[in-house]
Amino acid sequence: MTRAPSRGVRRLGIDVGGTKCLAVVLDADGEVIDEQRRPTPKGPEAIIDTLAELAESCGPFDSIGIGVPGLVGLDGVIHASPNLVQVNFFRVGELLSARLGRHVQVDNDATCATAAEWKVGVARGATDVVMVTLGTGIGGGVVAGGALIRGANGFTGEIGHMVVDPDGPLCPCGRHGCWERYASGSGLAWLARQAAGTGQLARVVEVAGGDIAAIRGEHVQAAAREGNAEALAVIDEFGRWVALGLSNLTNILDPQVFVLGGGLAVAADLYLDPIRAWFSRLLYSPELRPHPRLVFAGLGERAGAVGAALLADAG
Amino acid sequence: MTRAPSRGVRRLGIDVGGTKCLAVVLDADGEVIDEQRRPTPKGPEAIIDTLAELAESCGPFDSIGIGVPGLVGLDGVIHASPNLVQVNFFRVGELLSARLGRHVQVDNDATCATAAEWKVGVARGATDVVMVTLGTGIGGGVVAGGALIRGANGFTGEIGHMVVDPDGPLCPCGRHGCWERYASGSGLAWLARQAAGTGQLARVVEVAGGDIAAIRGEHVQAAAREGNAEALAVIDEFGRWVALGLSNLTNILDPQVFVLGGGLAVAADLYLDPIRAWFSRLLYSPELRPHPRLVFAGLGERAGAVGAALLADAG
Repeated sequence: MTRAPSRGVRRLGIDVGGTKCLAVVLDADGEVIDEQRRPTPKGPEAIIDTLAELAESCGPFDSIGIGVPGLVGLDGVIHASPNLVQVNFFRVGELLSARLGRHVQVDNDATCATAAEWKVGVARGATDVVMVTLGTGIGGGVVAGGALIRGANGFTGEIGHMVVDPDGPLCPCGRHGCWERYASGSGLAWLARQAAGTGQLARVVEVAGGDIAAIRGEHVQAAAREGNAEALAVIDEFGRWVALGLSNLTNILDPQVFVLGGGLAVAADLYLDPIRAWFSRLLYSPELRPHPRLVFAGLGERAGAVGAALLADAG
Repeated sequence: MTRAPSRGVRRLGIDVGGTKCLAVVLDADGEVIDEQRRPTPKGPEAIIDTLAELAESCGPFDSIGIGVPGLVGLDGVIHASPNLVQVNFFRVGELLSARLGRHVQVDNDATCATAAEWKVGVARGATDVVMVTLGTGIGGGVVAGGALIRGANGFTGEIGHMVVDPDGPLCPCGRHGCWERYASGSGLAWLARQAAGTGQLARVVEVAGGDIAAIRGEHVQAAAREGNAEALAVIDEFGRWVALGLSNLTNILDPQVFVLGGGLAVAADLYLDPIRAWFSRLLYSPELRPHPRLVFAGLGERAGAVGAALLADAG
C-alpha cells in the first residue's frame, strides 16, 4: 500500500493585525494557494468569531496557526497587545481551539514573520538571523544557532522597546527613548516634525498640506523621491537610528543576516544605502569582523500569515 | 569487563585575563581539584609560552579549554581584544594546540563564565539565561532555548557596547554612550566624578584622597557602606543604568534569569536592591508578565576557567 501524496496538505495561517486579519493557505511546498482577509473587530469575542469564520471559509485544512501582535505567551495567551482592543490575558489559542475543535498554534506576529523569511524567504539557510519589522512600531524575531528563539515566556524579540536614549521622547509603553520612537514609521514622522519645527523641511510640510503636525513618513518619502535635500537629510538621520539599533543587536546576537520588513520595506530603495553606510560606521570593531548582511524582506505583507502556517505545521 | 571509573577524568580550563591567567582542573563532577595562576605577559608569543607552561604544570589532563577576552572567532582566533596587548588576529587556539600536540578549545571569557554558571552554578536548569559581567567593562553570554548561543562568528554577548545614549561619553570602542560607560566599574566611577564635579560627594572625594579624578568605584562603595547619602544616591543612579540595560536585554531575549558577575559582584549587597527596584520600573508591561530573576554569580573569579574546562569537554 503506497502512502498518499502529501501534495494535498493544506496549512492555514492567519496574521491578526491591528486593522485586518490576513489568512493564507499553503500547500506542501510552502506555496500560497488561497488568501482571504477580514477587518479586525474590537474585543476578544468578536475576534474569535472573525477568526473562526475566516478559518471555515478557508477550509478544509490540516493545521492552523495564528500570529498576533504584542506579548504572546508560549501557552497561546496574549498578555498585552497595544494594537488590539481589550485583549490583556486573552486566551486566544484555547478559545479558538475549542471553537474549531482542533489545536491552534499561537505565536507573536513578528516571530511568525521571522520563521517565514528564515524557512522559505530571504534568510533561508542561515543559522543566525534577526528580523526587524519597521512599521508603526518595531517588532522583531530571532533565530540563533539554527533555532527560532522564543525566550522563557515567548516574549523574545520586543526589540522596538530597547531604550536608546533615556532622555528621548515618551513612548506609549511608558518609558522614554525606545528605539521605535526613532527608527519606525512613527519615528520617521517624528524626526521630520522635529526638523520642520525649526523651520526646515518646507517641501515636506507642503506635501503634508501645510500642517507640521500632519507630517507622516509617506510625506518625507515623497519629497525625498523628488530629490529634496532636506527630506533626504531626514532619511539619512532615520538611517542612522535604524543602524544604531542594528549595531546594538549585532553586539548582542552576532547574526549573519538582518531581515528588514514591515510597512517601511516598500520604500526600501530610499533607506538601504543610508542604513548600510551608518551601520558600517557604528559597528564595534568594523574592520576586524565579517559584517552581517542587511536585506529587505521578500514575503511582504504575507510574511506573518505564511509563518503562522509554517509554525503550526511544526507544532 | 566493567568500565573504568570516570572519577579519574581531569579537565583543564584556563581563563586568560588582562592581568593574570587562572587555571583550574575539574574532576568528573565539576569540582575544582587544582588551581594555579600566572601573570599575563605581553604579546602573542609570550602568552603561548605562559599557557603551555601552565598547562604542563597542571597536567596530566584529558581536555583543555581556554577563555579569552574580546572578539573570539569560532575558529579560535582572537580578532580584537582591548585588554590584551598586540593580539589582533592572534590564532591562539591553533598555536597552543600545535605546542601541546592536542586540541585546545577557545571561547570568549564571558561565554565561558556563562557556561559555568549555567551548567554547574546559580543558573543550573534554566533554558534562557543572560549573564552580565560587571567589571572594568561589561561582558556577557547568552543561553537561549536550552543552548549556549555563539552567533554567526562567535561574537554573541558583547552587550557592554549596546549604545544607550548616542550623546553620552566617548567609549574606547570609538562610539558614544555604550552601556558599559555607565553600568560597569568604570561607569560607577564616572557617575561619581560627574557628581563630584558639581560640588557633591565630599565624602567620596575625601576617601579618594581629595582628587576628583582619582575617584574609583571602590571609593563610592566605601562611602556608601558608611551610610553616606550622596554615595548611596550614586549607587542608586548606577543601579538605574544597570537596570536599563537589563530591561533592554529582557525585551530582546526574554530570559528566566540574569546572572550578574564580574568584579562588582563582590559588593552585590550594595547594588542588588537598587537594580531590582529600577528593573521593575523599567520593564515593558511589568504588571503583565513574569519577571526574570536577578541573581549574583556563584563561582566568583573562577567562573571563566571552570567554563573553559566544561566547554572543552563538550567540544
